[in-house]
Amino acid sequence: MAKETPCELCLHPGGEVIYRDDNYRIVLVEDERYPGFCRVIWNAHVKEMTDLATAERAILIAAVWQVEEAVREAMQPDKINVASLGNMTPHVHWHVIPRYENDAHFPNPIWGEVKRTPSSADLAKRQALVPRLRETLLARFNQSLL
Amino acid sequence: MAKETPCELCLHPGGEVIYRDDNYRIVLVEDERYPGFCRVIWNAHVKEMTDLATAERAILIAAVWQVEEAVREAMQPDKINVASLGNMTPHVHWHVIPRYENDAHFPNPIWGEVKRTPSSADLAKRQALVPRLRETLLARFNQSLL
Repeated sequence: MAKETPCELCLHPGGEVIYRDDNYRIVLVEDERYPGFCRVIWNAHVKEMTDLATAERAILIAAVWQVEEAVREAMQPDKINVASLGNMTPHVHWHVIPRYENDAHFPNPIWGEVKRTPSSADLAKRQALVPRLRETLLARFNQSLL
Repeated sequence: MAKETPCELCLHPGGEVIYRDDNYRIVLVEDERYPGFCRVIWNAHVKEMTDLATAERAILIAAVWQVEEAVREAMQPDKINVASLGNMTPHVHWHVIPRYENDAHFPNPIWGEVKRTPSSADLAKRQALVPRLRETLLARFNQSLL
């Protein structure tokens, strides 16, 4: 059987890497409408969460909750959206997205219909919180190494 | 402070209840384009996963993996999508969605742009697998009670 083409998340980090260990990495996603959008990406090419061993799932989802907590703390969103889809890139990765009632799609998912153009002031305010998110993530994940 | 209006998932089961215990329930969602679409709903009104205690999160997410495994086994999808959004109904619930390369939205999320009208034959074939899914779920969750 021919070997499959390596997938995007096997070839590329998938964003600005904030933390990486043997199992997974945490990246900040470049999306001007969604400052603070993070992904938690399993390093190995695995398609579904239930393809991982129970202990591996636990490791990955614990990281997702850590990221959710860091995003809530630093970005103060109105809601958190968490999803593992992978239809385009079937390599386990979790989206952790801070949502605001006046963001581009709210209350739709960010993949749904656009509802409004967010104000530049709001986006700038959120963008200004990203350094704090970076620090919060670094502190949480480096501490977990101790 | 005025009491908030009870939310939809506090008032209604949210679908055909397949299993329910003190913590959560599993429902089959009525969506003609997505036979086998399940939700795992935390019974208490809690907004985010990280508002739950660590032990509660573990209970809920273990149920989500059980549902994912049952959906894969019974529905044989090309991909599984899992998400906790709650922008409209901020009461923790997980969507577990069997996806097929020729379904209405693939490779978009089901909340994204429609890509095609799925064939009635494919939908009928998937619908015909739902009784098997119901049985698989019942077997898994009743067994976990033993």
